[in-house]
Amino acid sequence: IGLDTSREIVKSGPKNLVLLDRIDNPAAIAELSALNPKVTVTFYPYDVTVPLAETKKLLKTIFDKLKTVDLLINGAGILDDHQIERTIAVNFTGTVNTTTAIMDFWDKRNGGPGGVIANICSVTGFNSIYQVPVYSASKAAALSFTNSLARLASVTGVTAYSINPGITKTVLVHKFNSWLNVEPRVAELLLEHPTQTTVQCAQNFVKAIEANQNGAIWKLDLGRLDPIEWT
Amino acid sequence: IGLDTSREIVKSGPKNLVLLDRIDNPAAIAELSALNPKVTVTFYPYDVTVPLAETKKLLKTIFDKLKTVDLLINGAGILDDHQIERTIAVNFTGTVNTTTAIMDFWDKRNGGPGGVIANICSVTGFNSIYQVPVYSASKAAALSFTNSLARLASVTGVTAYSINPGITKTVLVHKFNSWLNVEPRVAELLLEHPTQTTVQCAQNFVKAIEANQNGAIWKLDLGRLDPIEWT
Repeated sequence: IGLDTSREIVKSGPKNLVLLDRIDNPAAIAELSALNPKVTVTFYPYDVTVPLAETKKLLKTIFDKLKTVDLLINGAGILDDHQIERTIAVNFTGTVNTTTAIMDFWDKRNGGPGGVIANICSVTGFNSIYQVPVYSASKAAALSFTNSLARLASVTGVTAYSINPGITKTVLVHKFNSWLNVEPRVAELLLEHPTQTTVQCAQNFVKAIEANQNGAIWKLDLGRLDPIEWT
Repeated sequence: IGLDTSREIVKSGPKNLVLLDRIDNPAAIAELSALNPKVTVTFYPYDVTVPLAETKKLLKTIFDKLKTVDLLINGAGILDDHQIERTIAVNFTGTVNTTTAIMDFWDKRNGGPGGVIANICSVTGFNSIYQVPVYSASKAAALSFTNSLARLASVTGVTAYSINPGITKTVLVHKFNSWLNVEPRVAELLLEHPTQTTVQCAQNFVKAIEANQNGAIWKLDLGRLDPIEWT
């Protein structure tokens, strides 16, 4: 989802796209740059599980260079219920810490200009895949956190919405471990359901970015984009 | 809530009550033992943030001694949105790890006898207090995890339900930090709402234990006990 969404974002034509990822992929950066020469695409190595202070330092480098940043997309995610601590660290704590770090630069109480946060959660945040209870719970947490952020926008000047993909044909769901192997065939069973392509998901993601609705809970499933109601 | 619930549990008369907590409280153990001489009350020091292997070792000691354990209550919790990592580690990861550890002894796939898990979550799992978005999200995660456990009961033989207290007059809510101080008066504001006493909450907790319904999501608010519907 990450690469196809980056392609769609580049096509939509922002001034800059900064990609943060654990692993550098120069071919992908080159492809993205070629796709729309008006967009400056840059890459920084980043692991969302690093301490908050380290994230703040990286963001300072980026803000110093770009002066302003309009949108933060928190999209790091893993799906492997054999790795309890890491699932929680990446899918939940990573989103909270990266968000907390950027508030230093955006929070209007510190004279910041505000900003927009798009958190990639998952439909499993509201309809869990119970064979991966840790993954599903980490996504429920990311969704709850995002909804709270949206309600804090009047205080912080920072708005937020969640992007909740359904089952999408990615490497993530091709093969993964269930909790305590409660269902060794979970990946197969999941892919028996109707799915969507990463391109469909990415195109709807950009539509959600363009809609820019504070508090929206976007469901991106089966090639559709729908706002859903949730407490 | 912990001590008053322990009092109500001892009154209800199980053979054994094993308390696990970071801090030993010999006066409380003595009081509980005196309350019902038929119940053996014991204490082990336990911090839910220790690695899984350490939890398994402690549980082995307890299972070796008692032979069988019928009910695990995961009740450790902190409320302080200045402590992001610790909130997640105690309220979410601690519940997942303690549950995962006890499966070694209970899972029917390993020849275990099954068991029952009662997880203390919170009404903020479904109605977040957005001024403490990390706490609320950690409880949303614990709730989602518990609901998945219940749906896995046919595989594991272990049933589960959640205990979701509303605002209860405890030391936890007397004074606590909001996320990035978004609302310095959050504790005061919260206590302007109607609340319940810890004794009311504890008595309803024991009723929920006696009801023993797999998958139940119990709301314990304003002195009432109500099952709620949630996906």
